[in-house]
Amino acid sequence: MELTSEQRLDDGVLERGFTLGEVPGILWTPGSAAAPAPLILLGHPGGLRTMYPRLAARARRCAADGFAAATIELPWSGDRPRSAAAEQARADLRRALEAGGPVDDEIVDRLVLPLVDQAVPEWRAALDALLALPGIGGPVGYSGGVIAIGVRLAVVEPRISAAGLFAGSFVPRTVFEEARRVTIPLHVLLQWDDEGNDRQMALDLFDAFGSTEKTLHANTGGHTGVPRFAGEDASRFFARHLR
Amino acid sequence: MELTSEQRLDDGVLERGFTLGEVPGILWTPGSAAAPAPLILLGHPGGLRTMYPRLAARARRCAADGFAAATIELPWSGDRPRSAAAEQARADLRRALEAGGPVDDEIVDRLVLPLVDQAVPEWRAALDALLALPGIGGPVGYSGGVIAIGVRLAVVEPRISAAGLFAGSFVPRTVFEEARRVTIPLHVLLQWDDEGNDRQMALDLFDAFGSTEKTLHANTGGHTGVPRFAGEDASRFFARHLR
Repeated sequence: MELTSEQRLDDGVLERGFTLGEVPGILWTPGSAAAPAPLILLGHPGGLRTMYPRLAARARRCAADGFAAATIELPWSGDRPRSAAAEQARADLRRALEAGGPVDDEIVDRLVLPLVDQAVPEWRAALDALLALPGIGGPVGYSGGVIAIGVRLAVVEPRISAAGLFAGSFVPRTVFEEARRVTIPLHVLLQWDDEGNDRQMALDLFDAFGSTEKTLHANTGGHTGVPRFAGEDASRFFARHLR
Repeated sequence: MELTSEQRLDDGVLERGFTLGEVPGILWTPGSAAAPAPLILLGHPGGLRTMYPRLAARARRCAADGFAAATIELPWSGDRPRSAAAEQARADLRRALEAGGPVDDEIVDRLVLPLVDQAVPEWRAALDALLALPGIGGPVGYSGGVIAIGVRLAVVEPRISAAGLFAGSFVPRTVFEEARRVTIPLHVLLQWDDEGNDRQMALDLFDAFGSTEKTLHANTGGHTGVPRFAGEDASRFFARHLR
């Protein structure tokens, strides 16, 4: 892991850019911490530069709760090399959405499964590097982003002990099978009127999770209309499980 | 309204029994309050004596947040006169549940609709009397109990400005029509594994509510297994809307 930039935000949070091989990322740590801070991995849909304001806001909130937060760029997004197959899948998705019909499972599979396969090892490598830094300890939470990545991480990465998932993206059928193997506490956020989201599929996925503690918070509003209090609920979920 | 008993609980909360005509009730007020306290009406399934421990716990929590809380006995429950029709409907429901089949809409209608018709004017009369007492102001919230009563109250009683509903009881079809006319902020609690509850019906009812702000909190567990943090979420909902 190579640190590429460092700045102190106005609320004292230390923001550091890094690269891990070809993968850029950002780490935020609380201004003052007596003990190594728990870490929350911040998921997103890809495109660190575009997502930065929202990620930084989530990270400051983590820091206010005493947590470090980190994120990495997704494969084939932002400044990373493109993939012809991923571009094709995105174009096919766009066409299907514009046509107004349901989106073929086959397109969703082509769009999401390679992304999960490529991204998850990168997030795990980032976790190795982040947990080796002074000031960052466990436990680790995962929050938001592409839900299929969160599900896979929850299944395969034992260092993640709680996950906040956003049921707002396409879910390949195989993810339902993985969901049954998730056992960590889950906090699932659903925007009830999310235009691009299949609400019944989100409810079915929530039902499939194997976790003893799972909570669904559904709110009126579209994909980007998550109410402020819902963000606060998610913070409390992590505070309950990572402190 | 006639006060029938008064005791100071160990946390300073003042608990007063009352009757309003033939209807017994309980009022809890915070030990110390600078201004008239907002009021939360505590719904329940009927049977004040049996429900007392849970109601008192909910009331203490309201008091800790600076709210008064009050409840009244439901028609044909507890020490109130029985109704032959209600007894028959309950017996028919029990038989239907024991037979393991779905419960006829006709039985649900006979069980719930007369209860709503009888109970709602009583709760409104209680509200008149309670708001006339010194130390109790507005705004007013309604919380829990038979969901069809909560829905009707939310529609017809303009003094209720926020409602926390528990999606854990039978819902007559006509309640869906009423739900569309609800416009106040709603916080709906659903126990995902509630044995005696139709989950899809609860989700459909949540969908039907006309409120711009509505939130569904679903948690793993059965009817009585509401996790502690879910109660805290509901308290925060009322704090947001009644303060």
